[in-house]
Amino acid sequence: MLAYSKDVDLNIEKFLVQNIPIEFKEAMLYPIKTGGKRIRPTLVLLSAQAVGGDIASALPVAAAYEIAHNTTLIFDDIIDKGETRRGVPTLRKAFGELTSLLVGLKYREAVVRALEETPQFLRLIKVLSRTIDEILEGAMLEVLFERGIREDDPFINSKRRANISVEDYLYMVDKKTAALFRASCESGAIVGGGTEEEITALRNYGTNLGVMFQITDDYLDIYGDEELIGKSVGKDIMEHKIANIVVLLSMKEMDDESRNKFIRMISKQEVAKEEILEAIKIIKSTNAEKEVFETLNSYKVKLKETLKPLKQTEAKIILENIADFVVNRKF
Amino acid sequence: MLAYSKDVDLNIEKFLVQNIPIEFKEAMLYPIKTGGKRIRPTLVLLSAQAVGGDIASALPVAAAYEIAHNTTLIFDDIIDKGETRRGVPTLRKAFGELTSLLVGLKYREAVVRALEETPQFLRLIKVLSRTIDEILEGAMLEVLFERGIREDDPFINSKRRANISVEDYLYMVDKKTAALFRASCESGAIVGGGTEEEITALRNYGTNLGVMFQITDDYLDIYGDEELIGKSVGKDIMEHKIANIVVLLSMKEMDDESRNKFIRMISKQEVAKEEILEAIKIIKSTNAEKEVFETLNSYKVKLKETLKPLKQTEAKIILENIADFVVNRKF
Repeated sequence: MLAYSKDVDLNIEKFLVQNIPIEFKEAMLYPIKTGGKRIRPTLVLLSAQAVGGDIASALPVAAAYEIAHNTTLIFDDIIDKGETRRGVPTLRKAFGELTSLLVGLKYREAVVRALEETPQFLRLIKVLSRTIDEILEGAMLEVLFERGIREDDPFINSKRRANISVEDYLYMVDKKTAALFRASCESGAIVGGGTEEEITALRNYGTNLGVMFQITDDYLDIYGDEELIGKSVGKDIMEHKIANIVVLLSMKEMDDESRNKFIRMISKQEVAKEEILEAIKIIKSTNAEKEVFETLNSYKVKLKETLKPLKQTEAKIILENIADFVVNRKF
Repeated sequence: MLAYSKDVDLNIEKFLVQNIPIEFKEAMLYPIKTGGKRIRPTLVLLSAQAVGGDIASALPVAAAYEIAHNTTLIFDDIIDKGETRRGVPTLRKAFGELTSLLVGLKYREAVVRALEETPQFLRLIKVLSRTIDEILEGAMLEVLFERGIREDDPFINSKRRANISVEDYLYMVDKKTAALFRASCESGAIVGGGTEEEITALRNYGTNLGVMFQITDDYLDIYGDEELIGKSVGKDIMEHKIANIVVLLSMKEMDDESRNKFIRMISKQEVAKEEILEAIKIIKSTNAEKEVFETLNSYKVKLKETLKPLKQTEAKIILENIADFVVNRKF
């Protein structure tokens, strides 16, 4: 999918190995070496091209956004005690909690070094920090939206929000996931020298794509193929996450008995595999799948609209097609 | 000590309470409300004044450096499982590990918002990020310099460095502690509109003061009064930290028998209170205390030298005197 993948990766490694004791080098490179779809750097480069910019000057920004993305994954895995990602042990599982924390914090600063290589550093660094701030707000909301009890965490357990609407969900997703897509596209347009109209267009495109990405992620968590997604289905249910759009839409449709049973299961301290499968069965008995596809289609219409201000280029066509890739992906 | 303490605190709070769910507000403000000596904002303001700048425009930078300092404390307490700080429970102890992590990450971004209020944002943000990067390098080295076994952390346990010299220690302290003092003074001089010569002078002043501060911290850990320092004496020994200058200097002087006994104690999985007191007794039987004072005095001479390029102002006199305050403090 990404023709410049190797150039992006070389850039990423260059920014990651600076100012660390040699003992931590392997851990620093581990999250990048274990793969990933490189969607965010792709969006940076395509956005730069879509406004007439060139690839070479956008490469550090592409690297910055893949590093920023991995920063969020490292901390997500600490927060959720994640053990497997991309089919291999997570950084915290492979190198321990402490190293994982220090590496995650180092990643945040590596992003600055990457952006320093651009003439638009001043503007790009503000976009980046505002974006991380949004992602953290999203992470806080995600925890408040959980069901169940977090061990040794009376503070969080006492603060959980009672009723989560689809609107609450969409606000959280805008922060948690769409913010980084939005910033990738916006920053690509900035480094590519786009007009303010083009930058805004790509910003809005990124927001819509990000929401579609998260909805598809939620969908795959329930309907996906374990072999392909590289993790167990129903991970959100196992982690007491009610804020999955499939879960929210299906709960609206359940009769009271099913809904109560469902909430009981998702709130249990340890949700057993058979309970997860039972919960998925209840979800599949509703019309949630159809509603999810309808929601995705409405975002797709909005997304195509956002690209209208852009000139007709090859990059623009690819950006349109990426929406289909994101929605139709199996992992 | 700091006449503008209230203005600094109001600035700090303003930057901390933005973009967070209301449930996390108390936790966000907790580290600031529990006190602290406000040394770094004082250095920012005095450095700005020493180059002829005014307090009002330096206030956001002062706030930024107190927030940055608290960021490092929040993560230090996560790394060391710290339970008490400033005589009260640490953030992680009061609000839990997860909240502590999210708040720490939020603090990092609040610093950016603070620096955005200055005309020198571009330069100040680079100084800030380079500084955090140095602090993280220092934190990595500090862990590698430990003795003993970290539970569930085979990676770190396998990477420990064998012999730690005073030079290794000073390199680590330059990153871990002096970097933030250096950046506070440098940034104050920048926002105050200092010449490059003045900025460099205050940078060097900050480095020397930071090293003196850490050496005094190490000294108080062994020779301090528990009531005044707000924590147990021998905390470094309890945490297997051989990289305390008093420990390093005293080990040089011990006979083989005492040294072996000392290393055995400090490397134990759980160092009992009586063993800590025994280790302190061994340390006190050496000339380490005298050598520490000699080291501090040599830094004091260097520190006074750094201030020579500055015009004679009230701020300059206070900066000179702060060196005595830092060294003679009891907590």
